[in-house]
Formats: sequence, structure tokens, C-alpha cells
Amino acid sequence: MTLLHDHLADLPSCDTAARDAVHERAGQILRPSGALAWLDELAEWVAGWQRSAHPRVVKPAGLIFAADHGVAAATQVSAYPTGITQAMFDAYRQGRSTINAFAAIAGATVTAVDVGIGQPTADIRHQAAMDADRFDAVVGQAFDAVDRLDCDLLVLGEMGIGNTTASAAIAAALAGGEAAAWVGRGTGVDDEGLDRKRDAVQESVRRIAGVTDPIEILREVGGAELAAIAAATVAARRRSIPVVLDGYVVTSSVLPLSVAVSGALDHCTVGHCSAEPGHRKLLERLGKRPLLDLDMRLGEGSGAMAAVPLIAMACAGITDVPTFAEWFGED
Amino acid sequence: MTLLHDHLADLPSCDTAARDAVHERAGQILRPSGALAWLDELAEWVAGWQRSAHPRVVKPAGLIFAADHGVAAATQVSAYPTGITQAMFDAYRQGRSTINAFAAIAGATVTAVDVGIGQPTADIRHQAAMDADRFDAVVGQAFDAVDRLDCDLLVLGEMGIGNTTASAAIAAALAGGEAAAWVGRGTGVDDEGLDRKRDAVQESVRRIAGVTDPIEILREVGGAELAAIAAATVAARRRSIPVVLDGYVVTSSVLPLSVAVSGALDHCTVGHCSAEPGHRKLLERLGKRPLLDLDMRLGEGSGAMAAVPLIAMACAGITDVPTFAEWFGED
Repeated sequence: MTLLHDHLADLPSCDTAARDAVHERAGQILRPSGALAWLDELAEWVAGWQRSAHPRVVKPAGLIFAADHGVAAATQVSAYPTGITQAMFDAYRQGRSTINAFAAIAGATVTAVDVGIGQPTADIRHQAAMDADRFDAVVGQAFDAVDRLDCDLLVLGEMGIGNTTASAAIAAALAGGEAAAWVGRGTGVDDEGLDRKRDAVQESVRRIAGVTDPIEILREVGGAELAAIAAATVAARRRSIPVVLDGYVVTSSVLPLSVAVSGALDHCTVGHCSAEPGHRKLLERLGKRPLLDLDMRLGEGSGAMAAVPLIAMACAGITDVPTFAEWFGED
Repeated sequence: MTLLHDHLADLPSCDTAARDAVHERAGQILRPSGALAWLDELAEWVAGWQRSAHPRVVKPAGLIFAADHGVAAATQVSAYPTGITQAMFDAYRQGRSTINAFAAIAGATVTAVDVGIGQPTADIRHQAAMDADRFDAVVGQAFDAVDRLDCDLLVLGEMGIGNTTASAAIAAALAGGEAAAWVGRGTGVDDEGLDRKRDAVQESVRRIAGVTDPIEILREVGGAELAAIAAATVAARRRSIPVVLDGYVVTSSVLPLSVAVSGALDHCTVGHCSAEPGHRKLLERLGKRPLLDLDMRLGEGSGAMAAVPLIAMACAGITDVPTFAEWFGED
């Protein structure tokens, strides 16, 4: 058993009293009952996982994990060379990438954590991406990263050239169907690259045909940043921080949690549906509706960050707006 | 001819040089080309209408027009009494309504303008909502209100008990089809109220069967806040301020502009698609895709305000993020 298996035991459940209090208040707010529809439900969800009847998003945080992939170095599955992972990591750290620009508008911090840049995982076509020691080390790094944050909503993002290949392998191994159906163009690979990517996914999934434990599948065909995202998701649950999932890579990263433990993603909402074709299928499987559907396919947490102001508005619409009784009593 | 007819003549066109410059830059930004898809197009659109190659949303403003409707006083077409218009206006002014909470998160100001609270328009079933003098006066108020704003993006909102009835009448008169098909429950009217509402819309549309000028249709079956929204939309065009349209009422208010002058709404984007059933049909007719689709049906500009951070992010994604050349040259 890995460290992530341990952390998955006895997950805290939702604070139903907080959630129900917000549900009741939502029906009394100074606006037609139900006029905010889904946003009221979002506020209830935040309340339940923040464990507070006064849900608020005033300290959102973006946490981006970056790492390199052996499969990308061994066979060209991406439109970009692996060195781009480091370049983008530098941009996050210096506040210059798209996610930083989005976070500035959302009032969020951005923290980028290197979990293996220049230390690629093994080529998943031929062996496990990580041995148990490295997997545990990455999980520990992710828990530490979440521990260091002071936030009320967590956006998880990733950067790693080749990581939509690993994501497709996880999705194919856990959700089944033709492996090729889970493969998209990622950052924009050409037709030949797409063929190589499909082959790589097929080969990887075939290699682990006997593996049934979903966390083991994550270790076998995932990547370091994918394992970190799964671990950070569990860490957030333990610290009463609701999570906003980003696109295909992030969703594939957490899929093993939900297969391993029913309800393990109940504290997660989905920021957007990506243009990467496998994402919509994964969301349907998870039964989660994305807040935004804008054909974005950038990663780095950008689609989730784009949804943060909506979640903040949903909460403010409950916490900062009076009820009819409060308003007419106030006059 | 009314004052609004005059203002509609010789509308400024888009700054295509600014728009094209942003289009070119979008393809060079430090991210996979096309990864932001529609958001890049939004930034181009903002650039074209702000007339700047450096599009930005740092001073968004919400402008809410409020007024009462004779048809609502004469026959119960709303779930709420007409006095609610004043109560909500007070809440906007005191910063306590949902739109204020949303605006605080979007970094926007909120200005509420009374264009006829307690001075209801005439009952549109039997006579013109406004005579030419009142219509011109409201248009003047709206132009003045826009003149007083210092903003780079304008959200238009409305409050007026009974105004989805007026909106349905405008839509039915201009877009055709069964009048009843344009009528929804608004703030949540019951079945009997819905029947009264359908009757009122049918009667109003029948009364103006001979009127073909779209601006005259707005004056005949609209309302004061609807006329103000149409006028403010034109005023914004003249001041190089892109506009975010809200739900059914706002979209119905500006529909006459687009019928009168092709391209009159090119400087407008649509914040969200409302749960009011006629809204989606109107958007299809206008060929506009809503940024959000969250089943909201509140009005007061809330759905448009919810989309403001996305538009700000789209602009920041161009203006605040380096190109590949800038980034790698910087190192």
C-alpha cells in the first residue's frame, strides 16, 4: 500500500448542517427564490466543504505541479520539446504566464511546485512511471504544498510536456473502451504525433492489463504531477478546502480517487470543460457538470481559475446579500 | 423621428487595426496557439471596440435602469407587487443587492438610475407605453448616465416589476411567431398569472400591428428602463465602451437597435443565457453566443456581471502575458 492509500482512508464527510443552513437561507435572500439556480447550489456545496454556514471565497489559491515524462522524451507525443516544462515553470514562478494573469483577476495566489522537472518518470510504455518510493515522495510533497497554503478554495493545475498521454492512459485503464478514443491533440500535436500518442497509450494500457487497484494504475501510467494533483485533492479534503478541477489532465489525475473510494471527489467541482475530447466523457462518468464551456485547452489550471470568480459570486450572493426579512426589517 | 433615431445614425465602426493587432499577438503568446480559443476572440473584440491594441478591463461598470410598468399595475403579470421596484432600487443604491455583491468581486461599480419608479408607463395593452416626449426624455437620461461613467466595459441591467411582459411584446412584435411563445414565468409567476401575461402580450402586439419601425415598437410596447437600455447601448458605442448584455429583458431592449441598423450590436457581447425561455431564441436570432449558461434568471445585470471577470481575463491573457519571443528574449 502506498502513502496515498493511507490518506484515502476515512475521508471527512460534508458538513451537512452548514450546507442545509445555506440552502434554507438561499430561499429567503432578497431576490426571486431560485433565480440564481446553480449558483445557490454552488454556495451550498462550498458551505458543506468549508464547514461554515457563511461560505466565502476571499483567499483562493492556485497550485500548479510540474514534472517531466519519460514517454515524451522517448517518443514524440507532444507538439513541444520537454524543455518547455522548465520554461513554463519559470514563467509561473515569475508571475508571467496566463494562469498568473487570470489569478490576478480572480484575486488568487499562484504557487508552482516542481515535482520532477528534468527528472522524468520512466517511459510508461515499458515500465511503471514511478516506483513506490518516488510515488510516496511526490504524495508527501503535495501534502506539504497544501499544508503551506492559507486558502478557502483550491485550484489545481499542471504542466508537463507529454502529460495528456499519461492522462489518456489512466482514463483508458480505468474507464475502459478503445484506448485511442481517450487520446486528443493536447497542445496541438500533428497527425503523425497523434498516431504515436495513440500507440503509446495503447501499449501502456496493455502493459498494466493485470493491475486493478486504481492508485496503482496512477503510479504505473501516470506522472509525478498527476500523482501530486491526486494527493493535493485528498489533502484539501482533510483541510476543509473545496477544490476546483481544471481540464483533462487534472480530471484524469483524480479519477483514480473516485474509483478507489466512492464520494472521494465530492469536495471537487469542475471549472470548465476542455476542448480535449476525452474530458467531456470523463466528466459524464464522474457525474460532474462544468461551470464553463469555452473550448479552452491550456492546462496550468487556467480553466479552473476562470471559474473562481463565479464561485466567489455564488458565495457572496448568500453571505453578503440580506434576506427579505433582513432587508425590510432594516428599513 | 425620436432622439434615439438620431443617435442611431452613423454609428462608429470597429477599430479593425487594433483588433487585428490583438489577433496577431494572440497567436504568439506564451501558450499553445489557440489554447484560449474563444477568450482570444473576446480580447480581439474588446480591442476593436475600446479602439486599443492593449485591451483591458480594469474599470468595469454596472448601470441599472429601473422603472414601473402600467400593465403590471393594471393586471397581475408578475409574482411581485410593483412596489418591489422601489425596494430593489434602494438596495442597489445602498450596495446590498445581488448585483452589488457580484460587482464587488468583478471590481465593478454599480450605478442605479431611476427612469420612472412610481411613474408607470401606460398600460401597453391599450396605448403606447410612452409618448414621444417621455421616450426622448428617457433616452436623454440614459445618454447622460453613460456620459457620467468612467469605465472600460459596461454591464447593463434592469429592474421593473412587469418588464418581462414588455420584453415579450417587443420580441413577439419584432421576431414574430406566436406571442405566447415569447412569454415565460419571469420572476416566477403562477399558472394563472402566466395566462394573464400571455393575454397581455398578445393584446399589446395586436394593438400595434401596423407599426413597423423597430424604435417605435420599443416606445409602444416597451418600458422606460428598456428604452434607457437601448439608448445606453448606443451611447456606449459612441464612447468606445464595449457592452455586456444580460438576460431576456436587456436583450429584448436592444433587439430594436439591431433590426433598425445592421451591426448596431456589434459592440455587445452576451454575458449569459437566462432560464427565461425566450432568451435563447433571441440570442440565436442575434447570432450571439452567451459566455455563461447557468440557468440564472435574476436580471439586475447579474448574469452579465458574472461574465465580467472572464472578459477581463481574456484581455489580461493578451496584454499581460508575454509572447514566446518576449519571454525567451527576456531571459
